[in-house]
Amino acid sequence: LYCGLLLFPDLTQLDLTGPYEILPRAPDTQVVLVAKTLEPVEARWGMRIIPDVDFVSCPPLDLLLVPGGFGVNEAMLDDDTLRFIRNQAENARHIVSVCTGSLLLGAAGLLQGKRATTHWRFRSLLSRFGAIEVRERVVRDGSLFSGGGVTAGIDVALRVIADLHGEEVAQEVQLSVEYDPDPLFGCGTPEKAPTAVTARASQQSQTAYERTAKSVELAAKMAVCRH
Amino acid sequence: LYCGLLLFPDLTQLDLTGPYEILPRAPDTQVVLVAKTLEPVEARWGMRIIPDVDFVSCPPLDLLLVPGGFGVNEAMLDDDTLRFIRNQAENARHIVSVCTGSLLLGAAGLLQGKRATTHWRFRSLLSRFGAIEVRERVVRDGSLFSGGGVTAGIDVALRVIADLHGEEVAQEVQLSVEYDPDPLFGCGTPEKAPTAVTARASQQSQTAYERTAKSVELAAKMAVCRH
Repeated sequence: LYCGLLLFPDLTQLDLTGPYEILPRAPDTQVVLVAKTLEPVEARWGMRIIPDVDFVSCPPLDLLLVPGGFGVNEAMLDDDTLRFIRNQAENARHIVSVCTGSLLLGAAGLLQGKRATTHWRFRSLLSRFGAIEVRERVVRDGSLFSGGGVTAGIDVALRVIADLHGEEVAQEVQLSVEYDPDPLFGCGTPEKAPTAVTARASQQSQTAYERTAKSVELAAKMAVCRH
Repeated sequence: LYCGLLLFPDLTQLDLTGPYEILPRAPDTQVVLVAKTLEPVEARWGMRIIPDVDFVSCPPLDLLLVPGGFGVNEAMLDDDTLRFIRNQAENARHIVSVCTGSLLLGAAGLLQGKRATTHWRFRSLLSRFGAIEVRERVVRDGSLFSGGGVTAGIDVALRVIADLHGEEVAQEVQLSVEYDPDPLFGCGTPEKAPTAVTARASQQSQTAYERTAKSVELAAKMAVCRH
């Protein structure tokens, strides 16, 4: 299984690095990092990661994974990126998004009529791309797997492995990365977190939400024009 | 808080990229990637990450995080790496290890008489460095925090934030990365996994275990010679 994980500037690297650590632990699985150019890509907080292949040199992928992050705002409006996603999606066996990566899939026209999820703060934007918003951590609709915010990438990747190789292989991989999570608090969703915590988190991300909403508006209009 | 996360060849990148995504979401926190040289560092499965500073240019750190991976076998025997860890540890407020990163701390002489953990497969090696082996996902002994295998880095990082900034900030960070884990199976530790799964995972990692055990032996002897 040839898995391509998309890098773009200002991505949330854990959306990608979680699945990157999980997927290749399954049999016959390779991971490559693909970006628009071969220049190092700077993720949020400054981490610089070097792509393995660019859009042109990337071979056909069996699995395409699209992470999220503030960088989706630009990526959703970038023709090369959208074309790459669409072209690869045509033949890929699995299309996977983590966090706001699903908005990028939406901008590429891949969510029309599909059940999907994204980071809780941005979930209401999914419908703008014709997606059916689902409040689950991992959502599957045929060949499309989408995960919630950031850390959900680990859960999505394990689900994909279970789908491809069965329970026992997925269990072995889970054990190999000692995935026995023990979150300090039961507050990983806005519904479970104390009201004050959710309120402050929502407020702090208001500007980010508005910026992404604006990009989604533009991307949705451009998608209509293409048809 | 100035946090330095150590890169070395053949590290398990999720040990580091998990905490890298979590720590800077706390107030007044910066993360830098530090390595022996400024050349890109290749993690397991091929990901290449560019360090921000080298051992010489790295300023004094408030927090030093050491990830694990097969690369600890060499790092445990590398004087420059051990000296860097020891020097930074003298003044750091927190020393953090994830996965077999704790063996590297042990080789640097920092685990003598300390309670610590590591990846389940390698836990029995801790005592060779004078550590007291603890079977918990996150173990704290004074300024030393150690986590279990790979994915435990996320739990350790949240624990450090709670320690530094209190519950509410840690909850906000947890919500921002939507850390509401939903592992497919309850098999993230050898005790919880089906016997056959644990047996096969142990067998598949036997060579890796033996290699690391050999390095630990050497590193422990070298540590004795230094005293």
